[in-house]
Amino acid sequence: MKKGYMISLEGGEGAGKTTVLELLIKYLDGHNIEYISTREPGGVNISEKIRDIILDKEHTEMDGRTEALLFAAARRQHLVQKVIPALEAGKLVIMDRYVDSSLIYQGYVRGMGMDEVFDLNQFAIEDLLPDVTLYFDLSPQVGLSRINKDKNREVNRLDLEKESFHQKVREGYLILAEKFDRIEVINAEKPIEQVFDQVIEVLRGKGILNEQ
Amino acid sequence: MKKGYMISLEGGEGAGKTTVLELLIKYLDGHNIEYISTREPGGVNISEKIRDIILDKEHTEMDGRTEALLFAAARRQHLVQKVIPALEAGKLVIMDRYVDSSLIYQGYVRGMGMDEVFDLNQFAIEDLLPDVTLYFDLSPQVGLSRINKDKNREVNRLDLEKESFHQKVREGYLILAEKFDRIEVINAEKPIEQVFDQVIEVLRGKGILNEQ
Repeated sequence: MKKGYMISLEGGEGAGKTTVLELLIKYLDGHNIEYISTREPGGVNISEKIRDIILDKEHTEMDGRTEALLFAAARRQHLVQKVIPALEAGKLVIMDRYVDSSLIYQGYVRGMGMDEVFDLNQFAIEDLLPDVTLYFDLSPQVGLSRINKDKNREVNRLDLEKESFHQKVREGYLILAEKFDRIEVINAEKPIEQVFDQVIEVLRGKGILNEQ
Repeated sequence: MKKGYMISLEGGEGAGKTTVLELLIKYLDGHNIEYISTREPGGVNISEKIRDIILDKEHTEMDGRTEALLFAAARRQHLVQKVIPALEAGKLVIMDRYVDSSLIYQGYVRGMGMDEVFDLNQFAIEDLLPDVTLYFDLSPQVGLSRINKDKNREVNRLDLEKESFHQKVREGYLILAEKFDRIEVINAEKPIEQVFDQVIEVLRGKGILNEQ
């Protein structure tokens, strides 16, 4: 059924994920490659409603496992309604964060267990893993100093976490990258042009971009 | 942590589950046994909101797995906020339907697979299975004829399903009863007084009622 490729972008704060995504979209447009770029809940009605329950500030009583189940439910519906149809139409699907974010933030950092969170997500995704996951790797020190310099950037909740939190996030991603061949570690401490060149090289190497 | 016992009631249409529950409550009141009687989503705010998403008639696009994940999320929150505190306070918890209903209706009848739906629910319940599950067993013919006679009963969606559907539900419960020692099959074709006597006998046999 699946004809298109799926890639996901992952990484901590200040890693340049958003900039790379913009450059990639410009690149795909320039090469007439059909794609969709999406991020859960992706404008899918049911998933948006589920997300509203997760994010409602009144819900301080929400249990961590309830939250993980809700994320998986929103993910499932987004896949069924938006991602799978695009893949079947032969489009390249770019996901800004996907299942690995759950493994890291819920499974590893909060300690629910990466394997257990993966098994839960398997119920939702039924083996639909990205062909390539680009993990933008950099030290928390570099990431946080970039964020502090960028005055246009709104400071979000994750930015304010302690350095040890960001260190733990990085640690988790590197463990995952050891485990899954699909995860490519991109050195995100380099200048953005070089980071983007690495991305294109990886995607060509995997046969996902073959526009030349 | 857990000090109280947990029992769940399961069964198809017309099996007398509701009547038995009423008799059991009267019995517990009469013997000054502390209990709560609950049914998901159990008045728990987050679970009610999740249930609203599941039941919204506009959501015809909802995928079966999304629904199963949402049921599991509502179940989790209900457990954490209502069931576990009652068990820890040493109360008897009576659940009108619980995890087995998901295994039957989603796993078996709809074909998602009982093992797979059980694994999903394990993420939500973390081994919190009932000490005893009472399955009220009767043939669909007897169940449906009882429903048709009862003019006070509102006909619901399940009542209108074909006999083959109810046959499949029964088949599923009997498979589960073979698999799990905790499930006790109660012959629900007998008159209600005898059915209730069977229930009390089972609960005494398991040491859950020891009021004598």
